[in-house]
Amino acid sequence: MPLVQITMLEGRTAEQKRKLAKRITEAIVEEVGARRAAIVVAFHEVSKESYATGGELMIDKVK
Amino acid sequence: MPLVQITMLEGRTAEQKRKLAKRITEAIVEEVGARRAAIVVAFHEVSKESYATGGELMIDKVK
Amino acid sequence: MPLVQITMLEGRTAEQKRKLAKRITEAIVEEVGARRAAIVVAFHEVSKESYATGGELMIDKVK
Amino acid sequence: MPLVQITMLEGRTAEQKRKLAKRITEAIVEEVGARRAAIVVAFHEVSKESYATGGELMIDKVK
Amino acid sequence: MPLVQITMLEGRTAEQKRKLAKRITEAIVEEVGARRAAIVVAFHEVSKESYATGGELMIDKVK
Amino acid sequence: MPLVQITMLEGRTAEQKRKLAKRITEAIVEEVGARRAAIVVAFHEVSKESYATGGELMIDKVK
Repeated sequence: MPLVQITMLEGRTAEQKRKLAKRITEAIVEEVGARRAAIVVAFHEVSKESYATGGELMIDKVK
Repeated sequence: MPLVQITMLEGRTAEQKRKLAKRITEAIVEEVGARRAAIVVAFHEVSKESYATGGELMIDKVK
Repeated sequence: MPLVQITMLEGRTAEQKRKLAKRITEAIVEEVGARRAAIVVAFHEVSKESYATGGELMIDKVK
Repeated sequence: MPLVQITMLEGRTAEQKRKLAKRITEAIVEEVGARRAAIVVAFHEVSKESYATGGELMIDKVK
Repeated sequence: MPLVQITMLEGRTAEQKRKLAKRITEAIVEEVGARRAAIVVAFHEVSKESYATGGELMIDKVK
Repeated sequence: MPLVQITMLEGRTAEQKRKLAKRITEAIVEEVGARRAAIVVAFHEVSKESYATGGELMIDKVK
C-alpha cells in the first residue's frame, strides 16, 4: 500500500492529474503487486515562487 | 520531538484541526515521552482533484 | 482518508508505535469523521545524527 | 520537475524499484510535459512495524 | 542531488524565499559537494490554523 | 518555525550533516526571522537503489 506524494508546480488540469494518478497506480499494482484500493496518490502543488532548482526560484528563470 | 505531517482533503474546520493537533500531541507525549513543546503537527490540505485512491481522483468517486 | 507521516528519532519499540498508531487513528476517526480503514500512519525514523533542532544535531546536545 | 516521494514497505527489489521509477517518470513526461532529466523519484522504505492502516501495524495484521 | 522540503507558515515574501533557496542550495553545494543544478528546494506553506506546536494551533497562541 | 526535510543519498558524514544543519538554520533565522530553537532539520537518507533521476536509479548511472 504505497503512498505516493508528488510535489509539482500548480497549474496542471484535473485531467492531467487524473491520468497521472491512474498510470502511477497501475504501475505500482503491476510492478510491486500492491492492492489497488490501498494505493494513495496525493499532489502537493506549489507556486513558481515556492520552487527552486539550482538555487533559483522558478519565477526568476529566464527561459 | 516528533514531527507529524498530515495530508488530508481540505474543508476541515479550525476546530477539527485544533482537536486533532491536541489529541495527537497528547498521544505522543504519553506513549513516547516526547517533550510537549517540541512536537509539531502540520496539516497539508489538498483539493479533491489532488487526491486519489485506487487510481481514481476523489472528484471522480461515485458515493 | 488522512495520511499521517511521523518523523522521529529511531529507538521506539513496536509497542510504542502500535499505541501511537491506534490513538492517532482513533483521534482522526472521531474528530474528522474519516473512514478508519483508509487512514495510514507511517513512521519515518532517523538517527540522532540526522536530526537537528536549533541548528544542532541531537548527537551534539548536552543534556 | 515533479518530485515523487513513495513511502512503502521495505523488501522490494532493485528491479522492482527500477521499473517503477521508469514507468512513473514516463507517465509524468507524457501526461504533464515535464522535462525527463528534472524528475526525481525517491523511495522511503519503512518496516512492517512502522506502517499502519486502520490503526493497526502491518506486523499485527492477520492475513 | 538533495531534495529540500520546507514546511512553514504562509506569508513570507518571494524575496525571502529567493534568499533562502539560494543560501540553502549554496550550503549543500559547499558542504556536501552536490551538483548545484540538481538541488531542489520546495516551500510548502500552511496557514496558522494548519500548524501547531505543543498541541496548540498557531491561531490560538497568545504572544 | 520552519521544518526542513532533506532527502539525500546515504553516506554523508555526521560532520557534513552538522554543518548543513547549522548553515540552513542560520539562513532561516536571518532571512525569515524564525526563532532558532524552533527550527527543525531532518535528513532522510536513501540508498542508491531508492533514488532515481530521469527515470534511472542512481545504481544504474554511468558516470
